[in-house]
Amino acid sequence: MLKPPFLLYLGDIAEVTYAKTASGIAYWRPEVARGQMRFADSPADLGLPDMSIEEAVDAGIQTLVIGVASAGGVLPLHWIPHLKQALEAGLDVANGLHTRLEDIPELHDAARAGGSKLHDVRFPSRNFSVGTGDPRPGRRLLSVGTDCAVGKMYTSLALHKEMSARGIKTDFRATGQTGILIAGSGVSIDAVVADFISGAAEWLSPANEPDHWDVIEGQGSLFHPSYASVSMGLLHGSQPDAFVVCHEAGREHIHMDSLTRFPIPSLTDCIALNQEIGALTSPDIHCLGVSINTSRLSDSKARDYLARTEYELQLPCIDPVRTGVDSLVDRLESETW
Amino acid sequence: MLKPPFLLYLGDIAEVTYAKTASGIAYWRPEVARGQMRFADSPADLGLPDMSIEEAVDAGIQTLVIGVASAGGVLPLHWIPHLKQALEAGLDVANGLHTRLEDIPELHDAARAGGSKLHDVRFPSRNFSVGTGDPRPGRRLLSVGTDCAVGKMYTSLALHKEMSARGIKTDFRATGQTGILIAGSGVSIDAVVADFISGAAEWLSPANEPDHWDVIEGQGSLFHPSYASVSMGLLHGSQPDAFVVCHEAGREHIHMDSLTRFPIPSLTDCIALNQEIGALTSPDIHCLGVSINTSRLSDSKARDYLARTEYELQLPCIDPVRTGVDSLVDRLESETW
Repeated sequence: MLKPPFLLYLGDIAEVTYAKTASGIAYWRPEVARGQMRFADSPADLGLPDMSIEEAVDAGIQTLVIGVASAGGVLPLHWIPHLKQALEAGLDVANGLHTRLEDIPELHDAARAGGSKLHDVRFPSRNFSVGTGDPRPGRRLLSVGTDCAVGKMYTSLALHKEMSARGIKTDFRATGQTGILIAGSGVSIDAVVADFISGAAEWLSPANEPDHWDVIEGQGSLFHPSYASVSMGLLHGSQPDAFVVCHEAGREHIHMDSLTRFPIPSLTDCIALNQEIGALTSPDIHCLGVSINTSRLSDSKARDYLARTEYELQLPCIDPVRTGVDSLVDRLESETW
Repeated sequence: MLKPPFLLYLGDIAEVTYAKTASGIAYWRPEVARGQMRFADSPADLGLPDMSIEEAVDAGIQTLVIGVASAGGVLPLHWIPHLKQALEAGLDVANGLHTRLEDIPELHDAARAGGSKLHDVRFPSRNFSVGTGDPRPGRRLLSVGTDCAVGKMYTSLALHKEMSARGIKTDFRATGQTGILIAGSGVSIDAVVADFISGAAEWLSPANEPDHWDVIEGQGSLFHPSYASVSMGLLHGSQPDAFVVCHEAGREHIHMDSLTRFPIPSLTDCIALNQEIGALTSPDIHCLGVSINTSRLSDSKARDYLARTEYELQLPCIDPVRTGVDSLVDRLESETW
């Protein structure tokens, strides 16, 4: 659990588009995003107050969050002095990169000296049990996808925000490093040992009040040859009452480093397989609706696409950016659970 | 890769039934099982020559294999002196227990002193890439199951043995600790990090000659709430041309520590789901036949069960112990691949 408020660290990146994590925190949790820190000549700007470590401490900042997804997930070495300074000043440092800060001796030592903590959120910091499949109280909504990177995190956060605004008891449950840094807690589910994927998902969305909703960030796709097993374990362990399918309009092939081309499944097939697999641990699971990233389409084409899909599937169909997620939450509120 | 021949270590277990690994090695690879070692008053006996460490060295033994699956997978501390002696004498030591021998300082030091190796086969000793889904030459046969512990390893080893006897080019690919110790190599697939399950399976059964068959040991079941994701990643990464479904006659519920009762799927459902999931990376995948553990049934009941199942599914249906696997290999040889 990361201690707020946060100082968002941008280093010397050229553009704010590389700061997906920092932008996400600033957008979804403005109340904890108190400042940004960057090299003096850096053009990337989130529009937050620039702070030095000293100023951050004075402002009551608790945690410096590395807000950048660098190429290959590697920490640039010339950022280390800033991180060291933060740790020595008593700030915790949170990191979603592949590089483990714990493995860098001077940061490890600085944390000890400052009485501060290193959070390498890409790596689970605890052991999990194997999944039990035992039913548990509370409601759960999982985002699933036709592919990776189709808006599962964004959709889940938007649903959580709208549900909160309507007074529904709800928590966002993060399963990837960006989501974890935004939420301040969670489990990097793809870094869990294979035997414990469903167990980690059970731990992440535990028993709760009967009318409480966990909105669980999905990962990968049951149709992705690299990551389907992660998606399946998350589906089994989450025991969702309902799922939302996320999709990008116009994407034809599964996003992979490999040259092999796998087609994106139809929404119908994707709904059917998630329902079939999910029913093992959640017999009444069903699709609540569809969330489509229509950013490649013009406004009018996007509207057509959403309307046609809604008609074909007879399910609410939204673009979380263009239309918002209201109709999904309407549907959730209209059902008897 | 473990160096043969082996000395099978039994410690002071009360019965040979606890020595599943040692029995498996003695049964499937008698040519490498040269001797056994046990405490002087131990009743468990594989019928192999008893050897001290000195005698084993003189007999040309290369590796001491801990042949026992102890309660909880923990190494009994009073076995350590024997293992230390073996390492100091230059023997490698192979271990499938949860306890890591590498983490026991005196064994770590003894290995360094003797120039010998510790093999903790339950833990992957290398990193894997994410799965690519790229097609590769060579034929592959995967055992799958309606549950855990229904005979997937036994069936795979029996198929490999019969195929070898008929002159088919084949390798057994082990995915669990017992299988790895029997085969002398493999990957403990359930200990791989979630992101890399299918990648590890691709690595384990690499490109090969077009008429070469990898027989891959399956794990878990797509219908097991704890382990389905392991089964799915193994299925996707193995890209099997065919699979054999393993099942235990009379078992009604999925084997779990949890109190929750999950029903065993029908063979028809199990075949259908493996075919559907497997087709993502192996479009022509199909079921070669069924392997049933009928040990709970009388001889005549078993014969009836196999005949009825064979008729219902229109697929060869065997018990690898009672009937052998000939008809599965007949079917494999009769098909055009």
